[in-house]
Amino acid sequence: MPQGFARNQCKRFHKVATAMTVQHRIAVIGLGSMGMGIARSLLRAGHEVSGCDVNPDSRQSFAADGGLACNNPSDASQHASIAIIVVVNADQTDAVLFGSGGVMETLAVGSVIVSCATMSPMKAKEFAGRVEAAGMFYLDAPISGGAAKAGTGELTVMASGSEDAFAAAEPALKAMATTVYNLGADAGIGSSFKIVNQHLAGVHIAAACEAITFAASMGLDISRVFDVITKSAGNSWMFENRIPHVLSGDYSPRSAVSIFTKDLGIVSDIGRAQKFPLPIASAALQLFLRTEAAGMGRDDDASVARLLADTAQIDLPKAEENA
Amino acid sequence: MPQGFARNQCKRFHKVATAMTVQHRIAVIGLGSMGMGIARSLLRAGHEVSGCDVNPDSRQSFAADGGLACNNPSDASQHASIAIIVVVNADQTDAVLFGSGGVMETLAVGSVIVSCATMSPMKAKEFAGRVEAAGMFYLDAPISGGAAKAGTGELTVMASGSEDAFAAAEPALKAMATTVYNLGADAGIGSSFKIVNQHLAGVHIAAACEAITFAASMGLDISRVFDVITKSAGNSWMFENRIPHVLSGDYSPRSAVSIFTKDLGIVSDIGRAQKFPLPIASAALQLFLRTEAAGMGRDDDASVARLLADTAQIDLPKAEENA
Repeated sequence: MPQGFARNQCKRFHKVATAMTVQHRIAVIGLGSMGMGIARSLLRAGHEVSGCDVNPDSRQSFAADGGLACNNPSDASQHASIAIIVVVNADQTDAVLFGSGGVMETLAVGSVIVSCATMSPMKAKEFAGRVEAAGMFYLDAPISGGAAKAGTGELTVMASGSEDAFAAAEPALKAMATTVYNLGADAGIGSSFKIVNQHLAGVHIAAACEAITFAASMGLDISRVFDVITKSAGNSWMFENRIPHVLSGDYSPRSAVSIFTKDLGIVSDIGRAQKFPLPIASAALQLFLRTEAAGMGRDDDASVARLLADTAQIDLPKAEENA
Repeated sequence: MPQGFARNQCKRFHKVATAMTVQHRIAVIGLGSMGMGIARSLLRAGHEVSGCDVNPDSRQSFAADGGLACNNPSDASQHASIAIIVVVNADQTDAVLFGSGGVMETLAVGSVIVSCATMSPMKAKEFAGRVEAAGMFYLDAPISGGAAKAGTGELTVMASGSEDAFAAAEPALKAMATTVYNLGADAGIGSSFKIVNQHLAGVHIAAACEAITFAASMGLDISRVFDVITKSAGNSWMFENRIPHVLSGDYSPRSAVSIFTKDLGIVSDIGRAQKFPLPIASAALQLFLRTEAAGMGRDDDASVARLLADTAQIDLPKAEENA
């Protein structure tokens, strides 16, 4: 968030990109695990990258990698032709774009905003309208793949927007992603696809946690359950990815519970707005809410299994046992 | 079911297995899509196969393939060293094993019963106890893979039982399955693994149907959604397998809705017996029940999508449009 920062010069430490490799000046707003990974992929591709984050450690680390660390989105966007917004939700996107010290204060007409936060399609449409009215392009571009793939430039982007928006964003997309879906000409479509993915991802995590704890309650060897299910019709991408966290008793956050209370919350909002009933997603949302209410919001989303195990007094593996 | 059939000679039509290829006399009780596929795989492997079913057409078809068609489980089990029970549930298994005209009337001491129906682990343990008390072996051996893989001898068997039970059943397992998990020495373990798989499979079908209809409600091109999700973290084995039925509007049963009202019903029973809460599986069960209540119990389980589309007045593809 830009609030409270004095407008001053962006700072570069250590490395300086040479004139040979500089292709574009790209701003990355938000240097969390995803934004930092994207920024590094852009630097590696030879772009000049300016970035900002409320966390001074993130700015320092970014500058040490050769980035131009700025104190607010407005400074970061000066002279940039592409601004990539990698914040948590629609409210933060609103603030970094349109708030005081925001991107829109300095970004040049004809530049493109690449909006990566998961949000409702209605919000994406609204932001696109305001950005386009100011003479810039807007790419509705939610990302998936996780922090590791952000760092290696191998994200998947579920994007929609005008041909001009895609063309203007191309140098950034090329450096940050291996798969870019062009899902349509209108903002909101990319966000809708991401929301469908988050519906399924959230339900599958909750189901995986429920099933593995249920298996433990029946006295089964849950590592054997993992082996059998991953080769059977009950498998999901999330079961295969998250259950190892339960097996090792390691709930350090790869992706936090709070991400899914947020994303299934958006799913739920859309369902209510459209009068579309979502009984399965609602049950999953309630499980994530219970897990966050129990104090595990910042822990790994596989913590839903811990919640159910605590409730039913079932023993799951503990990290200490594996040390 | 054996009720109402006169005890008479089993009938063989057309083909006769030669002495060279006969390895074992194996009875298959229940010649539905799974049992018939298993019986054919056994015949192809050179075994002498006796079988029975309440449906005369099934018996006729089985006999035409070279099987020994019998009128009841008792006749089919005479002279057999292995009896494979491929009926729908625990009640039917109980009837064909212990009822009048049942397997236990004729099966020789030292033979093995291979029980394939999905049932609660408690029932599997009960049946094993009664069978073993009579001097036979019992393999708790639920199957997965579907009718096509039953026909090609490529099933997966989630089995538990004594070493003797596995050894006695081996010729049959070899012919009917590519993967046989030996999950433990006690009956009930195999059934527990199958139940965990059915929990996840049922939830994933319901979630896939909810998500794809939700996507349609947002105006998305659902065939594009299928392409994107199957390459994303929201994917599941069931999403990939069942959504094509929705895309083609073809709800002819590959696996019926009623299978999951049954199997998620068993999941629910176990959860209640163990006082283990299952909010996700319960939500999925309710959706299958609503789909069956709406008259689609014998249709493909992807019909959950039709139910939701009907409820929310969303258009999904119709089979006629693709004809």
